[in-house]
Amino acid sequence: MSELDVAPLAELRRRRSAKWRTFPDDVLPLFVAEMDYGLAPPVTAALTEAVRRGDMGYPASTPELGKALAGFAGRQWGWEIDPGRVTAVTDVGVGVVELLRALTRPGDPVVISPPVYSPFFDWVPETRGRIVEVPLTRDDSGYRLDLAALEAAFATHPAAYVLCNPHNPVGRVHTAGELAELVRLARLYRVPVISDEIHAPLTLPGAVFTPLLTVPGAAEVAVSVVSASKAFNLAGLKCAAVVTAGSRMAEVVSRFPADPDDRVGHLGVLASIAAFTEGDAWLADLLSTLAGRRSQLGDLLRDHLPQLSWTPPEATYLAWLDASVLGRDAEPRDHFLTKGRVALEAGTRYGAVGSGYVRLNFATSPEILTDAVTRMAATMP
Amino acid sequence: MSELDVAPLAELRRRRSAKWRTFPDDVLPLFVAEMDYGLAPPVTAALTEAVRRGDMGYPASTPELGKALAGFAGRQWGWEIDPGRVTAVTDVGVGVVELLRALTRPGDPVVISPPVYSPFFDWVPETRGRIVEVPLTRDDSGYRLDLAALEAAFATHPAAYVLCNPHNPVGRVHTAGELAELVRLARLYRVPVISDEIHAPLTLPGAVFTPLLTVPGAAEVAVSVVSASKAFNLAGLKCAAVVTAGSRMAEVVSRFPADPDDRVGHLGVLASIAAFTEGDAWLADLLSTLAGRRSQLGDLLRDHLPQLSWTPPEATYLAWLDASVLGRDAEPRDHFLTKGRVALEAGTRYGAVGSGYVRLNFATSPEILTDAVTRMAATMP
Ligand SMILES: Cc1ncc(COP(=O)(O)O)c(C=O)c1O
Ligand SMILES: Cc1ncc(COP(=O)(O)O)c(C=O)c1O
Repeated sequence: MSELDVAPLAELRRRRSAKWRTFPDDVLPLFVAEMDYGLAPPVTAALTEAVRRGDMGYPASTPELGKALAGFAGRQWGWEIDPGRVTAVTDVGVGVVELLRALTRPGDPVVISPPVYSPFFDWVPETRGRIVEVPLTRDDSGYRLDLAALEAAFATHPAAYVLCNPHNPVGRVHTAGELAELVRLARLYRVPVISDEIHAPLTLPGAVFTPLLTVPGAAEVAVSVVSASKAFNLAGLKCAAVVTAGSRMAEVVSRFPADPDDRVGHLGVLASIAAFTEGDAWLADLLSTLAGRRSQLGDLLRDHLPQLSWTPPEATYLAWLDASVLGRDAEPRDHFLTKGRVALEAGTRYGAVGSGYVRLNFATSPEILTDAVTRMAATMP
Repeated sequence: MSELDVAPLAELRRRRSAKWRTFPDDVLPLFVAEMDYGLAPPVTAALTEAVRRGDMGYPASTPELGKALAGFAGRQWGWEIDPGRVTAVTDVGVGVVELLRALTRPGDPVVISPPVYSPFFDWVPETRGRIVEVPLTRDDSGYRLDLAALEAAFATHPAAYVLCNPHNPVGRVHTAGELAELVRLARLYRVPVISDEIHAPLTLPGAVFTPLLTVPGAAEVAVSVVSASKAFNLAGLKCAAVVTAGSRMAEVVSRFPADPDDRVGHLGVLASIAAFTEGDAWLADLLSTLAGRRSQLGDLLRDHLPQLSWTPPEATYLAWLDASVLGRDAEPRDHFLTKGRVALEAGTRYGAVGSGYVRLNFATSPEILTDAVTRMAATMP
């Protein structure tokens, strides 16, 4: 294992993505979920060759993408995917939106579990659904699914449940046991489950990711949306995949718009194929690098910012920090941005239950992370 | 002006896009609308730098895209675009679909004019609209809008008209006079017009493109969807733009899904900015190259395939060939593919009125074009 490098800050600032173009140069951007590492070498090779050949036309490689994903899922999680059941989509958001469009009618209730990735709150109204919130439950060991509350909600027959597994922003990897119970409830009450598994490859050492479709009985009620984009830092290339295992969900996907392939990024397909087939070694380095940053962040918080509490995430490079010590009237995100020049995400983006929290992206260098926490600490009253 | 080069066929076949991965190697692919030329040098530079920096995150450059597009439209057509009225979308298809979703209700009639780009027939049902066909009219000088028939259709108050300008597959550049009459009808009957202007930068020497929004009075009823993707061969990068000029249409766009920016390709944005700001010289070379291929195709057809008739296109690199001489029962596309190993698009993809036709993509080298027509000629009974 070797630690991944991060380019000097002045170089990073020449990137033109949202992370580097939203705030002025005196702000350290630890908000949006992009990483500061370079690309996996096989991804760079695939992209470089495509640019050299002027190979920028319509994507044509969905079968190849399905095969590459199946290989990756098999090696990583023992998940057997049928490549023929893989449908490329623009991104995870479009995948979930098209699934909701196919599964729900206007006005239908759709369950989500805040605090959760903020666009979940947009995707449901985009498809004219009505959000039903069943928040995660919380104890000393952190957040988890509130299965009793989910049962009560499922008993009212919502049109779908959108699961986040692993769960952004809290970094929870739902256990096989929890997912088995979720599947039992979904089958009992006939509630389709859409599992957003974009963070799965970012499961950190110490946790075990369970693909929902590997849970016995899940194939009939569940569909998964996956992508190489988060773990391989390819969000701008626009490629994700909807995966089914049962005939009912395959029928749902068959009602997607004609030629959805055309809406997928060709370079996203090429980069994802490279990542899924040749990216394991780089990914292992990434995960050990992120585990290092996670423990460094723990040390930094303990030494400099003991006022904030957190549970280290089991997956993702996102830390969910309780900053309620700043007081009821403070918006911690604004506090740290204005006083510390560190950009974080406001906890309230993930639902009202996120009030008092901030989300910090630690996929960066040890130096930038130290600088950020030092700046934040200096703002404390 | 210098003619653009085309890489050797063996090199082209290493591209992984739809044009090169749909048919076996003994077939010459002249079907899907991708070009065989290399990229414009400023586009290659922008993409190469992004790959080198690992700059693959979420797009952030919509204001820059709007400014670049406004500069390009001003120089090319004297079209003054307000950069603040430019909304990035995944591609032209998604732009039209989101506009239809915002403008229509399920079951509403939407007018299109076949023969027309085949996805028009998909986008309307995708948004649950009902297609009303008002075919182009035709005389010895070629196809044009049937304004009398459009008036009759508009009088029934359809929810929208989707215009194709320039018109794929027939290559017609609608005149300023025709568009003025169209706008008069749209205003009179209050029919919103969505103008797909993706082929505008491909207006060939001899014709003059009129952006619909430059027609007096159009701002109130019309919205335009444009992209660098067709002229600069970037279809796989997923970036197009919706442009409005009046407040009513701006309000329609304001109802687009939250964060549609996230669904746009970051490299598409970067490549489009490069194309729109620094691509004029390369584009001029492209247009003279395509004019050369158009006249070469005329010569080839006259000498080797006089059985097919056509009107040379005023825009696009697409030739709409009347192959009805092959007989009522023949599907000319299948005939030329099977007997000649040349892949063309079937005319019927563009509507029932396309029966007997094929569409040939001439954005290739003189050698490949000669080879294709020679092969086609050899199949003739
Ligand atoms: C849970 C979750 N889903 C989806 C996304 C976004 O994925 P995409 O850009 O493919 O829509 C993110 C991004 O961070 C995420 O955290
Ligand atoms: C008229 C027309 N509109 C749209 C498109 C496709 O554009 P996009 O890939 O941006 O949806 C094409 C492609 O050839 C076209 O000819």
